[in-house]
Amino acid sequence: MQSEYLRVPKAELADLVAGILAGSGLPPEDAGVAADVLVRADMRGIESHGVSRLRAYYLDALRAGHINPRPVIRPTRRSGAVAVVDGDNGLGPVVAWRSMRLCLELAGESGLGLVLTRRSNHFGIAAYYALMATAENMAGFTLTNSQPLTIPTHGRRRLVGTNPICVAVPARRCRPFVLDMATSVVPIGRIQLHSRLGRDVPPGWGADGEGRPTTDPGCILQEGGLFPLGGPAATAGYKGYGLAAAVDVLAGVLSGAAFLDGVLPPGHADPSDVGHAFAAVRLDLLGDPDDLKDRMDRFILRLKACPPGAGGEAVLVPGEKEYWEEEIARAEGVRVRREVLAGLRAEG
Amino acid sequence: MQSEYLRVPKAELADLVAGILAGSGLPPEDAGVAADVLVRADMRGIESHGVSRLRAYYLDALRAGHINPRPVIRPTRRSGAVAVVDGDNGLGPVVAWRSMRLCLELAGESGLGLVLTRRSNHFGIAAYYALMATAENMAGFTLTNSQPLTIPTHGRRRLVGTNPICVAVPARRCRPFVLDMATSVVPIGRIQLHSRLGRDVPPGWGADGEGRPTTDPGCILQEGGLFPLGGPAATAGYKGYGLAAAVDVLAGVLSGAAFLDGVLPPGHADPSDVGHAFAAVRLDLLGDPDDLKDRMDRFILRLKACPPGAGGEAVLVPGEKEYWEEEIARAEGVRVRREVLAGLRAEG
Repeated sequence: MQSEYLRVPKAELADLVAGILAGSGLPPEDAGVAADVLVRADMRGIESHGVSRLRAYYLDALRAGHINPRPVIRPTRRSGAVAVVDGDNGLGPVVAWRSMRLCLELAGESGLGLVLTRRSNHFGIAAYYALMATAENMAGFTLTNSQPLTIPTHGRRRLVGTNPICVAVPARRCRPFVLDMATSVVPIGRIQLHSRLGRDVPPGWGADGEGRPTTDPGCILQEGGLFPLGGPAATAGYKGYGLAAAVDVLAGVLSGAAFLDGVLPPGHADPSDVGHAFAAVRLDLLGDPDDLKDRMDRFILRLKACPPGAGGEAVLVPGEKEYWEEEIARAEGVRVRREVLAGLRAEG
Repeated sequence: MQSEYLRVPKAELADLVAGILAGSGLPPEDAGVAADVLVRADMRGIESHGVSRLRAYYLDALRAGHINPRPVIRPTRRSGAVAVVDGDNGLGPVVAWRSMRLCLELAGESGLGLVLTRRSNHFGIAAYYALMATAENMAGFTLTNSQPLTIPTHGRRRLVGTNPICVAVPARRCRPFVLDMATSVVPIGRIQLHSRLGRDVPPGWGADGEGRPTTDPGCILQEGGLFPLGGPAATAGYKGYGLAAAVDVLAGVLSGAAFLDGVLPPGHADPSDVGHAFAAVRLDLLGDPDDLKDRMDRFILRLKACPPGAGGEAVLVPGEKEYWEEEIARAEGVRVRREVLAGLRAEG
């Protein structure tokens, strides 16, 4: 039987995607940045944020004129270690990349940088931008808000996004620590997959239209919504809801972007007005960077030395699985679904 | 029947606690700070972090010489918007208060401040320090590591702390947004309470000595440990574990403090070497502060307008419950357990 997936060399896939984006009006440099962000998601095993989204999240919107292919991305405020960036409804990965570049510049000057960005769009994987910081011996942080898919604890309407949090810190001999997590229990795609396969979802993933736990994926998709991390109130879902809300306060409210159900989904004719937050801290202001990275190694190795539980699976360090995926992709090519690649080649 | 609780005027309770701490060797100013932190916890309804902990967490350690009553708390590094503070094994609330003061000073200069603190101890409620920022028109952030009580996903040993995260942002007519949450599903005290009452705990709170979910509180306390927020892997407990680990990286590893099971519990003869992280951002560098606080009001009111689910309970904004408790405490006195107050009066 033919495998569903092919392996494509990274450069080939990135060139293909960049060419398609440039063909939709993006300046070549921006097309290259966006292609690198999307391909990196596939390399890290995050297929849901990779090249398979090119059409629905980016191309269709560019072609329909819903996303600005040549935005004027600029800081509207910049003072000390802080800046606010207007994304001018540009492609999310382009706006986010520029914002994080500015953040690294601020951190270079002040030891610490914070950039809040408004009028952006879906930016792909948060880890991409936080890892820009680790490459420069800094700790990196990325937050973004997103379209409302999660029901607040005790509520019955989708009001908060799946608002991810990413923290990346470099180590010395070990790979960087990279936490990149949505603040909902699972992404909506996991519910959709169960629905397509005609399977119930495990309890604790989603709620029905009355906010009650349900295992029926159709009910979650049509009337209900996702539970925040923690699930219902009895298992502290209010903490996941609180985290999602805090991300929205920083990335949405304080940046001047849309927030809560004001954030429009990709594909909407009006601008999504997504908000992001980026931060970076130089390790050399906290101590000797090599000493600190040695301490990171010791932290990571101590976690890896944790004896496994009854399931027999090893304890993972955040970012470890994605690192292995990325190493395999570098050696053997990026794993892409056969029909996705065919679609890209038809566009290219 | 006599109530378990009494209401005591705030000033009276704070003076009583400050007097006891000063009697144990603390300079009067430091005793006042620590008393205010503890009393504020009771005012906010967080009894587990209030004056009932005075003896076990603070006095016993001071009297046994395990905590330094007259520490030299000083920045070992300070550059741009960043500082690293050595707490000299002082009382946690005193070290944390000084660290946050420095952080607000850095933010005053650079718009943004970050202070990482090592060689500290249990500091009470994280919200106290983050709220010092909101009082000055800044957003405030507090993180701390703590003794290991949580089992990493797939593991079977307590290795990470309950490492709380606090984010506080001021609003205009509404009260500040204040998320203050441990990254475990519940605090260990909730398991102890169920154990004392001879009741099972709900599924998803804790694991046995093999890392498997259990509802037996004795088993969680003796052989197992707490689940990170999210519970077992099937309900994304790896996210809560990742958050707890990220807090430890920032507050423990990068500050130069102890981390993971290197953090010793209160009461241990050797210094706990707890690590904290504090950050603050000036709203006036992000936009017009009144406009931003109006946006916070709109965010909060939009959440409050979420229709309630089948349980009929209202959707809460993070910090709302604690705010009401605090208002009641200001009007009617701080709620203290009768025997706790008797204990304090016997000390005082």
